[in-house]
Amino acid sequence: MKLQVTQENLNRALGSVARVANARNPLPVLANVLIRADNNRLSIAATNLDIAITQYVGAKISSEGSITVPARLMQDFISSLPGGVIELSLDELRLHISADQYDSVINGIVADEFPVMPTITGGTSWTVAAPQLKKALQQVVFAASNDESRPVLTGVLVHTVDGKLYMAATDSYRLAEKELGPNKTAVSLLVPATAMQDLLRILGDAEDEVKVTHDDQQVRFQVGDVELVARLLEGKYPDYRKLIPQSFSVTATVKRSDFINVTKVSSLFARESAGSVTVEIDADSGKLSIRSIASQLGENTATATGTMIGNGGITLNSRYLLDALQALTADEVVFGFNGKLEATLLKDAGGATYSHIIMPLKS
Amino acid sequence: MKLQVTQENLNRALGSVARVANARNPLPVLANVLIRADNNRLSIAATNLDIAITQYVGAKISSEGSITVPARLMQDFISSLPGGVIELSLDELRLHISADQYDSVINGIVADEFPVMPTITGGTSWTVAAPQLKKALQQVVFAASNDESRPVLTGVLVHTVDGKLYMAATDSYRLAEKELGPNKTAVSLLVPATAMQDLLRILGDAEDEVKVTHDDQQVRFQVGDVELVARLLEGKYPDYRKLIPQSFSVTATVKRSDFINVTKVSSLFARESAGSVTVEIDADSGKLSIRSIASQLGENTATATGTMIGNGGITLNSRYLLDALQALTADEVVFGFNGKLEATLLKDAGGATYSHIIMPLKS
Repeated sequence: MKLQVTQENLNRALGSVARVANARNPLPVLANVLIRADNNRLSIAATNLDIAITQYVGAKISSEGSITVPARLMQDFISSLPGGVIELSLDELRLHISADQYDSVINGIVADEFPVMPTITGGTSWTVAAPQLKKALQQVVFAASNDESRPVLTGVLVHTVDGKLYMAATDSYRLAEKELGPNKTAVSLLVPATAMQDLLRILGDAEDEVKVTHDDQQVRFQVGDVELVARLLEGKYPDYRKLIPQSFSVTATVKRSDFINVTKVSSLFARESAGSVTVEIDADSGKLSIRSIASQLGENTATATGTMIGNGGITLNSRYLLDALQALTADEVVFGFNGKLEATLLKDAGGATYSHIIMPLKS
Repeated sequence: MKLQVTQENLNRALGSVARVANARNPLPVLANVLIRADNNRLSIAATNLDIAITQYVGAKISSEGSITVPARLMQDFISSLPGGVIELSLDELRLHISADQYDSVINGIVADEFPVMPTITGGTSWTVAAPQLKKALQQVVFAASNDESRPVLTGVLVHTVDGKLYMAATDSYRLAEKELGPNKTAVSLLVPATAMQDLLRILGDAEDEVKVTHDDQQVRFQVGDVELVARLLEGKYPDYRKLIPQSFSVTATVKRSDFINVTKVSSLFARESAGSVTVEIDADSGKLSIRSIASQLGENTATATGTMIGNGGITLNSRYLLDALQALTADEVVFGFNGKLEATLLKDAGGATYSHIIMPLKS
């Protein structure tokens, strides 16, 4: 292998893929990135066996070949170099890197040891605009569970209902669902939330279409020169749509920034009670107030004004409330609930494509 | 106690003092800030017994009094409030805080339990310009030791030699000394580096004179409305000035940014060898090159050009080298050394007020 590539292009590619490599994995090659020059193009890839990311890079290839080298060292090194042309050449398992005033050798592991993800055969393909996908992921991914004891909840469900595409995630305490508009292909994919976080990073400020291809086992997202392949999760996702409340006995329409501020302040006093705060809505005074449960530290009541319908109170985890408010986008938001033990809903005022449900705490 | 203060002023005061409070100390009152309204002024103070910081704040005081409240909660709470007037009032040990749409109670500890630093009596005073003090501290403090087994090395020596003021710190592997110009008062103070770090934070962008007052036991720095009192360290500081080399068999004059870049890149390859790199200077080629010790990962040589006198190599800790280069300020720096086991010196080219010495590693 012998090639020339710009520092800028190689650095960008390592930035996309290197984070998937993991130096703590017992299999040493998983700490490495695969550098491959063939068919007159250079590719940089990393995998953790569940997710694989590959970026293709423009390069001037004098001779083909491949090697894997430690991802972190390679990324730190290339990102420290000045802009301009870098020459890579392979001598057995030693990758020589030279650039201007720098001369390095990085010891690699033979490319044959690098695990290859199975190819997707006979799959289905469709596209979605990158900015729309990015926004949806930002609103949904954080609601997925980290708890491996219920694997399906660690995924993001990407599915169509009545010809419309939805993404949803829940950890059983809260649920986020985003509608992405019409999709001709009927789909139902359960994608690991960790893969979606990597996808979010790769999407960056891309404006292109993202091509999504999947079979029963895997899904591939292609964004410009980068592709991410993830194993799909197995198992039956809960029928969450029936949990979304459709009508409310109490609703508040409040400026989102006000709601965020009063929630933040109240959460400071809720540290001893694991974040538990009580939201009170009073139609007569037109006030929404958040009360922190009195504790050893003290207590707090913070008030926001707006349009209230009905009277009542409900106890919630302030962190979940804050996450939901920060995922919403409109200047005004609507918060609705029924009984003290029933699901609450947060939405943008006037917006219907994003729903965020939080289950109440016992008060 | 009952008073009105602006959120902006109270927040700034808590920002100056609260970090000294420590919630992990077994004495609960040390996690608190002291809020005192007397003689028609409000003061906010915190201490860890070695350092005490007090800030005076403009306020409209209706009745005097004092209380201590948890520093972190108070700071987080006040910083979350919108700008404008805040009312504080005390009801037994409960501090009521009200602001616009917020109503809080924070439970306090009686002010009598708050430890008071002894006052400085019959001390000496002198002044130094805040920007000059700040620059000197930034160049010197990081060279002090963290190792409590040699307490004197955890201090910054502030002393006069031939009528000039100097600050110096060393951890015995490196040494930094800054000359601050003439000082009429002869001094020799050993101030804990941790106190100097707090002072650095308090100095911020202050343009005023800093008033320094000290006796045998303590030193007080007054900057605007803030004062920091620290206990002085005891013990004899090493006679470090005789360690500063005055002539060199090999010197390199190099662009500082180039030297930083080649050191950074080389340090990536020196992780396995605890940061050890070899600097080679070659007068014939006019090159300074840094070679990372070959390791399992690979090896690296990075080169900078400049004016070289003499030929030779020396092995250093790359982190120390980087710290020194980043503490220097000129576009060009001079690096000089003699034998492989003797102290090396870094200085700004043309500048004589800051000296940084690094002891070599055995190579």
